[in-house]
Amino acid sequence: MAITYITRRERFSAAHRLFKPEFSDEENFRLFGQCSHPNWHGHNYELFITVKGEVNQDLGYVINLKQVSQIIREGVINKLDHKNVNVDVDFMQGKLASTENLAIAIWHQLEKPIREAGAQLHCVKVKETENNFVEYYGD
Amino acid sequence: MAITYITRRERFSAAHRLFKPEFSDEENFRLFGQCSHPNWHGHNYELFITVKGEVNQDLGYVINLKQVSQIIREGVINKLDHKNVNVDVDFMQGKLASTENLAIAIWHQLEKPIREAGAQLHCVKVKETENNFVEYYGD
Amino acid sequence: MAITYITRRERFSAAHRLFKPEFSDEENFRLFGQCSHPNWHGHNYELFITVKGEVNQDLGYVINLKQVSQIIREGVINKLDHKNVNVDVDFMQGKLASTENLAIAIWHQLEKPIREAGAQLHCVKVKETENNFVEYYGD
Amino acid sequence: MAITYITRRERFSAAHRLFKPEFSDEENFRLFGQCSHPNWHGHNYELFITVKGEVNQDLGYVINLKQVSQIIREGVINKLDHKNVNVDVDFMQGKLASTENLAIAIWHQLEKPIREAGAQLHCVKVKETENNFVEYYGD
Amino acid sequence: MAITYITRRERFSAAHRLFKPEFSDEENFRLFGQCSHPNWHGHNYELFITVKGEVNQDLGYVINLKQVSQIIREGVINKLDHKNVNVDVDFMQGKLASTENLAIAIWHQLEKPIREAGAQLHCVKVKETENNFVEYYGD
Amino acid sequence: MAITYITRRERFSAAHRLFKPEFSDEENFRLFGQCSHPNWHGHNYELFITVKGEVNQDLGYVINLKQVSQIIREGVINKLDHKNVNVDVDFMQGKLASTENLAIAIWHQLEKPIREAGAQLHCVKVKETENNFVEYYGD
Repeated sequence: MAITYITRRERFSAAHRLFKPEFSDEENFRLFGQCSHPNWHGHNYELFITVKGEVNQDLGYVINLKQVSQIIREGVINKLDHKNVNVDVDFMQGKLASTENLAIAIWHQLEKPIREAGAQLHCVKVKETENNFVEYYGD
Repeated sequence: MAITYITRRERFSAAHRLFKPEFSDEENFRLFGQCSHPNWHGHNYELFITVKGEVNQDLGYVINLKQVSQIIREGVINKLDHKNVNVDVDFMQGKLASTENLAIAIWHQLEKPIREAGAQLHCVKVKETENNFVEYYGD
Repeated sequence: MAITYITRRERFSAAHRLFKPEFSDEENFRLFGQCSHPNWHGHNYELFITVKGEVNQDLGYVINLKQVSQIIREGVINKLDHKNVNVDVDFMQGKLASTENLAIAIWHQLEKPIREAGAQLHCVKVKETENNFVEYYGD
Repeated sequence: MAITYITRRERFSAAHRLFKPEFSDEENFRLFGQCSHPNWHGHNYELFITVKGEVNQDLGYVINLKQVSQIIREGVINKLDHKNVNVDVDFMQGKLASTENLAIAIWHQLEKPIREAGAQLHCVKVKETENNFVEYYGD
Repeated sequence: MAITYITRRERFSAAHRLFKPEFSDEENFRLFGQCSHPNWHGHNYELFITVKGEVNQDLGYVINLKQVSQIIREGVINKLDHKNVNVDVDFMQGKLASTENLAIAIWHQLEKPIREAGAQLHCVKVKETENNFVEYYGD
Repeated sequence: MAITYITRRERFSAAHRLFKPEFSDEENFRLFGQCSHPNWHGHNYELFITVKGEVNQDLGYVINLKQVSQIIREGVINKLDHKNVNVDVDFMQGKLASTENLAIAIWHQLEKPIREAGAQLHCVKVKETENNFVEYYGD
């Protein structure tokens, strides 16, 4: 009866912008700084998805990592990679494209398919640059 | 009365294979994919051992890191580095050589000597590739 | 009502030495090994400061990361970078300059200003080398 | 009379798109794949600028690294960071925003100010992702 | 007329062993140390393939990186990943499975297809561990 | 007749200071900035030593990497690690403790023993921080 935590890293390169559409560029700059630049900027995001569960004695794993990777790609990476977070991503519509909101929205994309595959989503970590990252544990 | 967590990274390069000896190569491939390749493959594993405890006011540390490193080398690294996980490692005999089982087995190798050295084992993290790692906290 | 954890990495290069002033060089060497070298040595320290809080629905963040960075620089980095931890740093006076004590002292430097800025300090992680790091959670 | 090579890393986060304006989205996709996505994507670019020269016996360096960093920031980073490579950057106007063209254009931005500062530009390396980078040596 | 160098990183995890079949295990250990362990060990190898050529003014690149990646995968990665370098790899038959020989053999696998694709192979770099790598430039 | 380049990474943690003893602290600060801080600062230096030579057909290598590592440790690392570059290191006496001078001095420490071991020293690379490094090729 051993609970282990398994983490899979995936990556996506995307454009985004922090802004509120009801505000002027000046007001957005005051709130969000250079991240509000109207012509977009972008990042190589790194995504660390941690799932937990009991190790199946027969197979030596909690869940097949290939399957975890496939769930992440279908639910998240294919929608974000080489895309514009604000414009192109269905699960980010109507939300500020911050790393915090991205982590929360990715949790809601993955929680159910991970559960149906027999494990439990534990943490979504989104690393925006080598100096900044956000973690969300579902609370 | 301050509890700190100290992590030491060690590394080992080893061969392994995921398979059940009672199954054919075809069945093993169906279960474990290319990780079941009969002639072995291998990894540069990274091991992150986290211990916790109160900081000794007189010495400024919980436990001497040199001692932690020595415990890890004696109990784990010397048995795994430049070895075959399935064939050569006493504490992995009879177990599937998965990263999950490796993390759990390493916990049981280290829990007692770390305790006897005056600290408490908190986490064993085994990083198999830059995209995959497993954590075990003893539960 | 979503709690997220945001981590900011900052860096500082500093000299230090592990030793007790009341002991001889030989006794210090016996206790702290080469880290007690009398003419100092040094490191490129990496500091990971994790804060937590509810995401502000209007702004998409818990706390402005620029502000977190500024608090860390004013309270910690400016006092440590290109300095001698033992000699120059006010908040380390009278303490052994270990990574453990550094993490705890940095916590006490940052806890209040982070709180006043509207978030909660969650973890101080000090990475001394690629093989060693210490975490402190305030307990 | 010792020639040394000094490299400074700087970083910028930018949006871009590979496309030819005279082509349709379909034609651009055929040529450039997902990198042609019309709503832009982006990267955390890393820039490695290598300069060479004789070490000044009196000062122990070829050129003050602070000055190199300032030249790179003024000529390149300030124009690219949190910007759109295709839309916002004067020295990329009329050019395909490829990593190759970016490296060549950055060379032409930096060659003269580095020379006037007393060193010689040796290499511009632009790293687009952890898997791809381009080097240009001025030939 | 600008010559640029483009580098693509690919990875493979493989088992290997340094030994001469005509020697005893003891003699091989004396020559190759723990790398000669009879039951194999393994690595996460990183491969950096650098090609050079003139930038096509019309397309902004020397060669399509997707094509470079495909050539490397077909000629090298598919034969090495999750395999045993000594036993499974056609282009390593009869050779000592050293990093040096691997780099040279990979050069001969890639030189012709890279040339036929319109670029010139410049360097094969094989990184065995974070502390060791070998480069071969075709001479 | 294949020439390969083999690189070995070693690390050392040291204190140093950039200053000219005949100048005042103010003058040194004007010349060297915060690197001239009188109470020292320090770094985790990374050293990349590249040697070249023909691959021995019988042994599959140019030179035994263990031997390269031993030469670097004896001639360089043991003198620098956990030391003060300005005060403790015989081969840096009377020199400004800059990364440039360090790279040149390390070259002169290693050139002869590498040659006597049957290979040729090609490059000494000293990485001071993640943003700065110096290379010296013996010219």
